[in-house]
Amino acid sequence: MIDADKIKQDFPILFQSVNDEPLIYLDNAATSQKPRQVLDAIQHYYEHDNANIHRGVHTLAERATTHYEEAREKLRRFINAASTKEVLFTRGTTTGLNWVSRSFGDSVIEEGDEIYITPMEHHSNVVPWQQLAKRKNAKLVYLPLTADGFVDVQKSAEVISAKGKILSVCHASNVLGITNPIKELAELIHQQNGYIVVDGAQSVPHMKVDVQALDADFYAFSGHKMLGPTGSGILYGKEALLNAMEPVEFGGEMIDFVYDYESTWNVLPWKFEAGTPNIVGGIGLGAAVDYLEAIGMDEIEAYEKELVRYVLPKLQTIEGISVYGPADPELHTGVITFNLDGVHPHDLATAFDMEGIAVRAGHHCAQTLMRYLDVHATARASFYFYNTFEDADRFIDSLKKIKEFFKDGFI
Amino acid sequence: MIDADKIKQDFPILFQSVNDEPLIYLDNAATSQKPRQVLDAIQHYYEHDNANIHRGVHTLAERATTHYEEAREKLRRFINAASTKEVLFTRGTTTGLNWVSRSFGDSVIEEGDEIYITPMEHHSNVVPWQQLAKRKNAKLVYLPLTADGFVDVQKSAEVISAKGKILSVCHASNVLGITNPIKELAELIHQQNGYIVVDGAQSVPHMKVDVQALDADFYAFSGHKMLGPTGSGILYGKEALLNAMEPVEFGGEMIDFVYDYESTWNVLPWKFEAGTPNIVGGIGLGAAVDYLEAIGMDEIEAYEKELVRYVLPKLQTIEGISVYGPADPELHTGVITFNLDGVHPHDLATAFDMEGIAVRAGHHCAQTLMRYLDVHATARASFYFYNTFEDADRFIDSLKKIKEFFKDGFI
Repeated sequence: MIDADKIKQDFPILFQSVNDEPLIYLDNAATSQKPRQVLDAIQHYYEHDNANIHRGVHTLAERATTHYEEAREKLRRFINAASTKEVLFTRGTTTGLNWVSRSFGDSVIEEGDEIYITPMEHHSNVVPWQQLAKRKNAKLVYLPLTADGFVDVQKSAEVISAKGKILSVCHASNVLGITNPIKELAELIHQQNGYIVVDGAQSVPHMKVDVQALDADFYAFSGHKMLGPTGSGILYGKEALLNAMEPVEFGGEMIDFVYDYESTWNVLPWKFEAGTPNIVGGIGLGAAVDYLEAIGMDEIEAYEKELVRYVLPKLQTIEGISVYGPADPELHTGVITFNLDGVHPHDLATAFDMEGIAVRAGHHCAQTLMRYLDVHATARASFYFYNTFEDADRFIDSLKKIKEFFKDGFI
Repeated sequence: MIDADKIKQDFPILFQSVNDEPLIYLDNAATSQKPRQVLDAIQHYYEHDNANIHRGVHTLAERATTHYEEAREKLRRFINAASTKEVLFTRGTTTGLNWVSRSFGDSVIEEGDEIYITPMEHHSNVVPWQQLAKRKNAKLVYLPLTADGFVDVQKSAEVISAKGKILSVCHASNVLGITNPIKELAELIHQQNGYIVVDGAQSVPHMKVDVQALDADFYAFSGHKMLGPTGSGILYGKEALLNAMEPVEFGGEMIDFVYDYESTWNVLPWKFEAGTPNIVGGIGLGAAVDYLEAIGMDEIEAYEKELVRYVLPKLQTIEGISVYGPADPELHTGVITFNLDGVHPHDLATAFDMEGIAVRAGHHCAQTLMRYLDVHATARASFYFYNTFEDADRFIDSLKKIKEFFKDGFI
C-alpha cells in the first residue's frame, strides 16, 4: 500500500501552519497540490528550454517542441488514446467541454434533437449544453439517478430515444462521491447512433482511465486536479470525430495556408491549438503523469478506497451529520460531501479552517444537484493519495470539536 | 540607461551554451525569457498558496484569490484601464482576439458590413475575422500600408466607410518592426461609429501602453512575450462593450444562477472567465509587471531604441542583406526581419544556431504579409531589454561569418 507519509514529503506546501495548526488539505476536488517533481519540471523548462514551439529551428525551440510533444505522448499513453492526434491540449476541462459543445454540438445537433445530461453535473457540463440546446432549439433532458446518486442505466435506457444525439456526463461526481458506469452509458447512446462526452475532471486524477475501453467519444479533464500546473488540460476525441470538427479558436499554428480571404487547417492535433499554448502547462502535466505512473493509478485508487473505508464510517456515526451519496464505503470515492444539522456549511468550513483544515463549502458549481438534494449548500472534504490516515483522524476529531463548539451556542 | 549586463543576471536561461557557443537569444518576438523574480513568484505560489480561487473560505483559497485579483489590478494599472472589470484574464492574445471576433463580432456585424484588417496582421488577427466575415456574409477589407510598412492613415480614411464596423490591427508588427498609429486609426473608425480592436502582443512588452489614451475598444496581449508564464494573457475591453457581450465559454465561476434549462451570468470581469483559470499564469504575469515597472517601460523602450540605432545600420551595410520595414532606426522597433541573397532563411537560422544565436525563420504566422512583401519566408532577430550591445555585435559578426560560409559554396 502507498506510504502517504513518505509521499507527503514531496509536497512542500503541505508543511505549513494555518491558524497555528498544521495544514491538512482536504480540498483536492477543487485542485490538487503539486509535488516537487512537477515544480522542478516547470523550473527546469523556464531555466533551460523556454522558447516558442513548432515554429523555430533554433536549439531552444526544438527542445521546447520536443518536450511539449513528448508530454502529449505521455498523456496519450496515460489515458490509452489510440493516437496523439486524439490528444488536444486545452486550458482545462471547461475549455474541452466548451469546444465539444460549440463545434461538435453545433454540427450534429438539429432542431428537436435531445441532449442528455444528469442532475449531478458541474456547471461546466450543464451551461454549454443549455446554450447549445438554445442555439439549436434542441431539448435538454436530465437522466435519472439511483437512490445512491449514480446515473441509473436501466431507467436511462427508457429515456434515451432515437432523437438522442449527445449524452454528456461526469465520470466521477465532484459532490456525490460516485463513479458513473460510463461504458454502459456509452453503449446506450451508441445504440441510438448518438455520442458520449465525458467530464473526467474527478476521475482521471484518481483511477486508471482507458478511453478506448470506455468507448468514450470525447473525454475532457484538467491538469491542475492531477498534480499538474494550473491552466493545463486535455480534450480527448476520437480521430474521425475531431477530423470532421471545425476548430473553435483561429490563429497561428492551427492553420495550413492563410490566404487573404480564407484559410485551410493544420492536421490533428494542432488544428485545434491556435496560438502559443500553455507550453509549461503541457510539460508540467507530463511530469505529473510521470509522478502518478511511478506510484501507479491502481495503487492510488486502492489507497484512497482504504482512506474512505476508514473515514466514512467514522463520519456517518457522528450525530447530526448527513453524508450525501452512497452510504457504503465500497461505492464511495474520496469526495465526501456532508452537512451538520443547524450549521451553515460556510460556518463549518470556516471552523475547519480555524483548525488548519481546508475543506470547501458551497454549491460546488453544481446548483442543479443542490436543488436535487434539496440543500442550499454542503461542506466537502476531498481526499487524495497524499492524505494520511492521521489527516483523516484530524478531520474527524476537528468535526467533533466544531460540533461541540456550535452546540454551545456560538452560532 | 538600462544596464543590460546587470539585468541579464536575472535570466538564468541565458547563461548556457548552445552548440558550444554562449547562447544569444534573439527570438523575443516569439516569446520572452523569464526572470528569476517571475520564477520565484510561480514557485512561491505553488509552495505556499496553491488553491482553487473564488469559491473557497479556507485560508489557502483566500490567499490564492487575493493574489490572483491583485495581479488583475496590477495589469489594470499597467495598461491604465479604468476598472478591473475591463481586464479579463485569457490564455493569450489569440484567445482574446477570438473572444472579440466570436462574441462581439457576431453581435455587431451584419450582412454587407465591412471589417478592416491590414496585410501585416498575425494569423491570430486574420483568421478569426475571415471566419466572422464568412459567418455573417460581411466583407473583409485590407487597409493600405505606407512604403515603410505602417498602416497608411490618410489612405485608410478613404477606404473606411459607413459600413465599417470593426477595425482590427496590431499595435506593433511582429515582422516589419513598426508601431502603428492606433489613436489615429481609432478616430477614423469611431467617426463611422465602428470599433477598434488592437493586437498588442508586440507592443505591451516593449512600451508604455495606455488603453484609454489610445481609445482602444478592445486590446489583447500575451503574458509569455512580456516575461510572464506561458498560457497567460489579457483582453481589455471597454466596460459597456463587455457588459453587452455574451460570454464565449460557459461553466463554473462565470455564472450567477444555473437553473435546469437556463442560466444567468456573473458580473464583469468573471462573466468571461469560465472554469478554473491559469491561476499561476495570472499571478506570474503580475510578477512580470512588477519587474517591468521597476525598470520602467519608457526606459525599456529607450534602451531598445538604442540597440536598434546600433545594430540596424550595421546590418544594412552588409551586402546582400535586405531588411524589411523602415530603413530609419528612429522608426524601427527591436523586431528586425531580413533576408540574405541566395540563402534560405531556414538555412540562415540554422547557421545562426550553430553560432549559439537563436533567431527565427519562416512566415512568422503572417502569410498575408509574406505575399505582400513577395517573399516566401524571412529571418528575424528580435531584441529585448536584456539583450546587450555585445549580443548585437555577436549577431552582426556571426551574420558576416555565415555569409562568407555560404559564399564558399556550402549551400
